[in-house]
Amino acid sequence: MVQRNTSREYVRTFFTSPTAVEEDDTAKMLRKAGELRGMQAPDVWVPDNEDATAPSMRDEGIENIIDVISEHGQDFPGEIHPRMVWHRDDPETRRQGFEHMMQLAGSDEDVIEHIDGFVIPEVGSLDDWKKADEFITMVEAEHGLEEGSLSMSPIVESGEAEIAMSRLNDEIGKHSNNLERLFLLVDGEVDYTKDMRAMTPTGAQPPWAELRHNTSRAASASGLIAVDGPYDDIRDVKGYRQRMTDNRAKGMLGIWSLTPGQVVEANKAPLPAEEGSYLLEIDGETVELDRVDEGYHEYTGDDVELEELGDGTYRLRIGQDERELDEDELHQELLDQTQYVMSMDDYVDSMEEFEEAKAGGKGAISMTRTATLILDGTEVQVTRDRMWDEATYQAAQTPVSLFQEVYEARPDQQDELEDMYGEDVVDRAMQVG
Amino acid sequence: MVQRNTSREYVRTFFTSPTAVEEDDTAKMLRKAGELRGMQAPDVWVPDNEDATAPSMRDEGIENIIDVISEHGQDFPGEIHPRMVWHRDDPETRRQGFEHMMQLAGSDEDVIEHIDGFVIPEVGSLDDWKKADEFITMVEAEHGLEEGSLSMSPIVESGEAEIAMSRLNDEIGKHSNNLERLFLLVDGEVDYTKDMRAMTPTGAQPPWAELRHNTSRAASASGLIAVDGPYDDIRDVKGYRQRMTDNRAKGMLGIWSLTPGQVVEANKAPLPAEEGSYLLEIDGETVELDRVDEGYHEYTGDDVELEELGDGTYRLRIGQDERELDEDELHQELLDQTQYVMSMDDYVDSMEEFEEAKAGGKGAISMTRTATLILDGTEVQVTRDRMWDEATYQAAQTPVSLFQEVYEARPDQQDELEDMYGEDVVDRAMQVG
Amino acid sequence: MVQRNTSREYVRTFFTSPTAVEEDDTAKMLRKAGELRGMQAPDVWVPDNEDATAPSMRDEGIENIIDVISEHGQDFPGEIHPRMVWHRDDPETRRQGFEHMMQLAGSDEDVIEHIDGFVIPEVGSLDDWKKADEFITMVEAEHGLEEGSLSMSPIVESGEAEIAMSRLNDEIGKHSNNLERLFLLVDGEVDYTKDMRAMTPTGAQPPWAELRHNTSRAASASGLIAVDGPYDDIRDVKGYRQRMTDNRAKGMLGIWSLTPGQVVEANKAPLPAEEGSYLLEIDGETVELDRVDEGYHEYTGDDVELEELGDGTYRLRIGQDERELDEDELHQELLDQTQYVMSMDDYVDSMEEFEEAKAGGKGAISMTRTATLILDGTEVQVTRDRMWDEATYQAAQTPVSLFQEVYEARPDQQDELEDMYGEDVVDRAMQVG
Repeated sequence: MVQRNTSREYVRTFFTSPTAVEEDDTAKMLRKAGELRGMQAPDVWVPDNEDATAPSMRDEGIENIIDVISEHGQDFPGEIHPRMVWHRDDPETRRQGFEHMMQLAGSDEDVIEHIDGFVIPEVGSLDDWKKADEFITMVEAEHGLEEGSLSMSPIVESGEAEIAMSRLNDEIGKHSNNLERLFLLVDGEVDYTKDMRAMTPTGAQPPWAELRHNTSRAASASGLIAVDGPYDDIRDVKGYRQRMTDNRAKGMLGIWSLTPGQVVEANKAPLPAEEGSYLLEIDGETVELDRVDEGYHEYTGDDVELEELGDGTYRLRIGQDERELDEDELHQELLDQTQYVMSMDDYVDSMEEFEEAKAGGKGAISMTRTATLILDGTEVQVTRDRMWDEATYQAAQTPVSLFQEVYEARPDQQDELEDMYGEDVVDRAMQVG
Repeated sequence: MVQRNTSREYVRTFFTSPTAVEEDDTAKMLRKAGELRGMQAPDVWVPDNEDATAPSMRDEGIENIIDVISEHGQDFPGEIHPRMVWHRDDPETRRQGFEHMMQLAGSDEDVIEHIDGFVIPEVGSLDDWKKADEFITMVEAEHGLEEGSLSMSPIVESGEAEIAMSRLNDEIGKHSNNLERLFLLVDGEVDYTKDMRAMTPTGAQPPWAELRHNTSRAASASGLIAVDGPYDDIRDVKGYRQRMTDNRAKGMLGIWSLTPGQVVEANKAPLPAEEGSYLLEIDGETVELDRVDEGYHEYTGDDVELEELGDGTYRLRIGQDERELDEDELHQELLDQTQYVMSMDDYVDSMEEFEEAKAGGKGAISMTRTATLILDGTEVQVTRDRMWDEATYQAAQTPVSLFQEVYEARPDQQDELEDMYGEDVVDRAMQVG
Repeated sequence: MVQRNTSREYVRTFFTSPTAVEEDDTAKMLRKAGELRGMQAPDVWVPDNEDATAPSMRDEGIENIIDVISEHGQDFPGEIHPRMVWHRDDPETRRQGFEHMMQLAGSDEDVIEHIDGFVIPEVGSLDDWKKADEFITMVEAEHGLEEGSLSMSPIVESGEAEIAMSRLNDEIGKHSNNLERLFLLVDGEVDYTKDMRAMTPTGAQPPWAELRHNTSRAASASGLIAVDGPYDDIRDVKGYRQRMTDNRAKGMLGIWSLTPGQVVEANKAPLPAEEGSYLLEIDGETVELDRVDEGYHEYTGDDVELEELGDGTYRLRIGQDERELDEDELHQELLDQTQYVMSMDDYVDSMEEFEEAKAGGKGAISMTRTATLILDGTEVQVTRDRMWDEATYQAAQTPVSLFQEVYEARPDQQDELEDMYGEDVVDRAMQVG
């Protein structure tokens, strides 16, 4: 397994700021971003000297980056990875990207010390990735930095780059490059859509499920971190969350954020829930029940009817599906139609219990969870058994070790995390695994 | 970026004709196809000497191709790419394909001059692609044609060929081959299904989403053109259109056509709409509103109710979702639930406006579009703002530059295009971008 | 095309048994599995010395494998492929896997003779696959077995292994390895999910559609057999069947089975149906009609209404879609909304008919199938024509040749197959193709 040189195992948020805008203080946006703290501050902050900044302002953008990082770099709670200009088809753009990196590194020791790496957009085949890598090596040599100490995070926004990702493993580790510096693999769906010449009737972005899979797979294969591209509709919080849920099912735990509001959402999204909840499936759609009290979850819509018919039989209608059931069948049916979303507390409890059992020589234990569902005004107790074995335990570690890393790496978020989960749960969560 | 030798950047239609049928005139189908003009004539016409023609008729098929191309090749408005026999697992078939190509090239100068390239089915790994390439190189050498002047369009109908596509970039451009001649990457789902040993309960074709993605991606990475396979149910125009919409969201802009009727559909499908339209989302399904007048779009079904309750509040029901809203909330809700499909006119307007703004030094402008929706008999004005920046502008270029190429490359379709869009819009569309 | 050394072309079932459990007879589970016969016996039986067996019991597991195979190996009706320990990141585990294989091969001639190959979990890049291959070559050399005679079936449970599959074709056949021994490509979604760091709200497995596609594609490209991973919810027979239907549409015909009950389901699932059936599409969902008599299929729900209005017109409502139709339109509408699932009998009939037509020089024939649908109490005759050409015929061969191989390779299932289909149909099915 290739040893990466970067410090983070998880990146939730990739937040871009224009490096120069048409205002009296052209560094205004950059300066504001540099002051973000807590849940509003991203894991990776990207002063964006490419698409977010007008071409004519990009030289000034470099000056602004130097200026703002000198001032805020020391205290910024996340990593800092400026995006340079680059294009697989344009040597002039590549040369400009090289010069900008040289300029940033040569400016002042305080600046390059706080720059963790560079984001390189519009890469093509691996030979193109190697050109960027070589320029960064030169920057390091020129300024006395350790080889490989600056990371590189390419934006995958062409079919060529997508294909390149599947070859990474053959190239990382070769003596002739320093691709161990790779850190994030970031999808850039807007330009990817253009490169693929894709069209949709309404101009909405295609879902690009395969691209996201391939990015996540390449990250997994080479010990990198996969990050999804921007979600343009800033007001659409529900859609942004849905996208992140979909991404996590692909192993893509990070996402681009365009505003501090999106940063907050994306910083929280991959963390375990504060409260457990029940999901009910109605005609193929999933509805979350209202948690009315500790252990009580109520469905308040019109799509469920539950009536006791006497003699221990029940009539249950869920959506279009109606049936008569005895008590056992009712319990089974409700088990089948509901799913439980674990809270942080549940994760910690279950992991502790499994660790204890394992220490006692057991390979698998049954975890029991009982809740009262309130359906059509009637209370029904549902008891759910789940076998926990090594594999279940390992799977649970993904969200918990993400939490642990966040808590360690982001002292500025510790208060908010303790407010969310309670100090006791946080303490125990930091011990398990 | 590899320089392709072929002339078209876009291919909408790939129309196959059997080269010999059991009739008095065995060239009957071929002859009829050669006379197609306008929207009925494909961008790429494929005299099909493989699966569409019985094995026993294929030598005669070659004679027929010579005969019909001599007569119609000069005037046929699209490119001509006959499909030869070939099989990755059968040297005898490959030799026969080679001889047929030699025969076509050696027949008569008028024939090979009008043949733009060859379609090679049933290819396997890249080594197999290179064998076909080498034979075409020999054909060129033998008949004094420039090396690489005949294009080659493989049919991807095996897992092996699908994998091969992801390596193309490593091979195109090598001195030892002429793979720069590659033109189309065409999926062949019928034989692919057999090769993959896939089965569905009803015998329907699996959707093969990943194959189409991989084909489109390879085309993007190597500057080729992706074409989807045949849609067998000729009567099912709605299904054919749906498939093409799905393909375009993958960047696959071309499709096989089995009849002149399908050619018409597929020639029109990737072009911008004649009229803009509104889509309304009802319980997860998308419905197109009726355009009743310039700027007026009506929903006539039973799934929407809109009632003014007085005091500036409204009751809106869309499908199963009912709520009371004030005027602003109503406007916002309708914005969220509707989407606009741009017409050619809209594209041209917006691109012109953006070009003007850019010339004036602006990087992004807001485009406003107002329409009146008629829901449950009530008129509601909806105003939609959309930010246009360089990326939006670039994305809009895909359909418009496709249109521009079609208009230039297909003089036989110009009248129909002018009838569709109006001369004024066509003139302006030819200027933007 | 690479020549595989293994005997089966199709594998429906991959059944794992723990090699040692905490009971008086630690080989109890293994012994019970070794006695399975008929539909309960898998095509590939996997004594599982990895995840199903506690780490502390694995040395004893090897003893148990030797013991049980000595006793049952001769008579077991399927192939036997024990799963060894292995890990791409852990040399100690690899060495242990090597020693266990040596031990199995050196134990007693009766044992290795009945072992068809080894299952190797947790593989990484192809270099890692080659290490396992090399160890098996050493095992063969040490014990006088023919090189390549033991097969190897890797479990794909990392992004690295998924990528490796797309390179297989470049490596199989090289003098420096014996990768021709590859047999199954088995997905392992539990550990894959962990390796990809994927999470879902409820802990359910992500669908991993792309992984399954890539596995099936690699199997197709290299003449191997694709097998899906375990389906944990043993009680959920409907879900298991749905997963297998989905897999078959991807060309993945085999699946892991955790219990003899799952083996029965998975042995039957890819075989043609005993009876033909009609599917009706209602608002996007597919419902199977009840077969009430030979050729009569009834819909008994509330979602269809059919009323004769007189004058040869009908009112038909299917779900939310209601319309008035004349007799021809009604027939067409029902053709469009229904699909037929062919029985084994239908396959054999149609293939025989096509073979006869082909012998008589015809390339395509129309097959007609008439049935009576009973909708809302009204009987309607529906006649469906389907063109059969060489491609249709070839596609039909996948299920039929699977059946033929099963019938030949599994004498212990012949009685059950004859009971299912009738002797006459079985006899004819063994002749076609």
